[in-house]
Amino acid sequence: MLTLYYARGTIALAPHIALEEAGADYVAKLVDFANAQQRTPDYLSINPKGRVPALVTPRGILTETPAILAYIAEIFPGAALAPLSNLFAFAQMQAFNAYLASTLHVAHAHGPRASRWADDEAAQAEMKRKVPEVVTDCFEMIETEMLRGPWVMGDAYSVADAYLFAVARWIEMDNVDTSRIPRVMEHRQRMMERPAVARALTAHVSA
Amino acid sequence: MLTLYYARGTIALAPHIALEEAGADYVAKLVDFANAQQRTPDYLSINPKGRVPALVTPRGILTETPAILAYIAEIFPGAALAPLSNLFAFAQMQAFNAYLASTLHVAHAHGPRASRWADDEAAQAEMKRKVPEVVTDCFEMIETEMLRGPWVMGDAYSVADAYLFAVARWIEMDNVDTSRIPRVMEHRQRMMERPAVARALTAHVSA
Ligand SMILES: N[C@@H](CCC(=O)N[C@@H](CS)C(=O)NCC(=O)O)C(=O)O
Ligand SMILES: N[C@@H](CCC(=O)N[C@@H](CS)C(=O)NCC(=O)O)C(=O)O
Repeated sequence: MLTLYYARGTIALAPHIALEEAGADYVAKLVDFANAQQRTPDYLSINPKGRVPALVTPRGILTETPAILAYIAEIFPGAALAPLSNLFAFAQMQAFNAYLASTLHVAHAHGPRASRWADDEAAQAEMKRKVPEVVTDCFEMIETEMLRGPWVMGDAYSVADAYLFAVARWIEMDNVDTSRIPRVMEHRQRMMERPAVARALTAHVSA
Repeated sequence: MLTLYYARGTIALAPHIALEEAGADYVAKLVDFANAQQRTPDYLSINPKGRVPALVTPRGILTETPAILAYIAEIFPGAALAPLSNLFAFAQMQAFNAYLASTLHVAHAHGPRASRWADDEAAQAEMKRKVPEVVTDCFEMIETEMLRGPWVMGDAYSVADAYLFAVARWIEMDNVDTSRIPRVMEHRQRMMERPAVARALTAHVSA
């Protein structure tokens, strides 16, 4: 049994989709960001970093989206969620996921979480102002250099698709120039047609 | 034969150490940041993101430090640079590496690369001002929650140690409060005693 800690609309949607695709036996537990539950002692005992996602497994607790996604793909090999028998292709998938974690997700976070990197309000406002430009640049890098099509890795669907979908849900919030990223937009639409994606999404919209 | 593209003092030191530890057959090619070589068409044809490290392999080009490090560990299993036969332990190592890439490295970058996230000079100055506090917090998270000792993963040395060492070389530049991270400082010292680390470092100091 696995337990996924998540909050609505966050990057935790990516492992949520992966668990659904894998047909995993899991429960999803909502962390209430509106009441700062991620900073309570109870939640910090699960993830001392105070973030979601966190995956509780019989072996221990795992954090960080790229690590959780690769682990889900590996413990459910039958679901074929990663190129498990090809070290180089697997590394390329991990490189894609690392780019989302270290560059695109971080660029997005300069909007809602500008206070992580500056105290001054004018500086925070300036960081927020630049978010559409920086995030659009990241998606354009994906559009032109990384997304092979129809799926991220080409013909084979993988956890990288779930990850791309989760960040692509922020496109409107971040005022991304969608005219520059038609293939990313098509990918998002294609993802919506997957039953596992629809099932995971139900937990991410308010009741 | 492998080719590592690197610049001095950058995160490329981590895969550089891993290649030395593995006894790999490789060449290291210096990218001249002083002359913005990372943004020339030649280098962008190797890594369109304009960053180092990039690893050219017979199978293709790999970018992103966590992906490169895991790949080196996997193609040189005899060097025992990762817990390759334990999926959960491997995922924990990947979680450690993902934290460095997405949180600590990014916190550091708000000093030298503030212009990525803000155009306004006052905003950039405010981001730089906060770097010591944010980066110290990241190292303290590692100190208290992540670094098992003597190595990151406990008794077994891994590529996570090379990665931690590479970011720990920025501690003075970032004015980190070292009194709060004695175990990280000991780890950095311990790493200096490894011959592979000394060999990799020779390429990172100016001639
Ligand atoms: N590097 C982490 C980042 C996780 C992260 O920042 N999650 C956000 C939601 S998208 C969060 O939990 N924020 C809560 C907060 O900042 O208080 C990962 O890739 O999993
Ligand atoms: N997410 C990348 C980041 C690599 C990165 O930002 N490298 C820096 C050096 S530490 C760089 O190449 N900077 C050049 C620039 O910004 O122009 C990774 O983890 O490999």
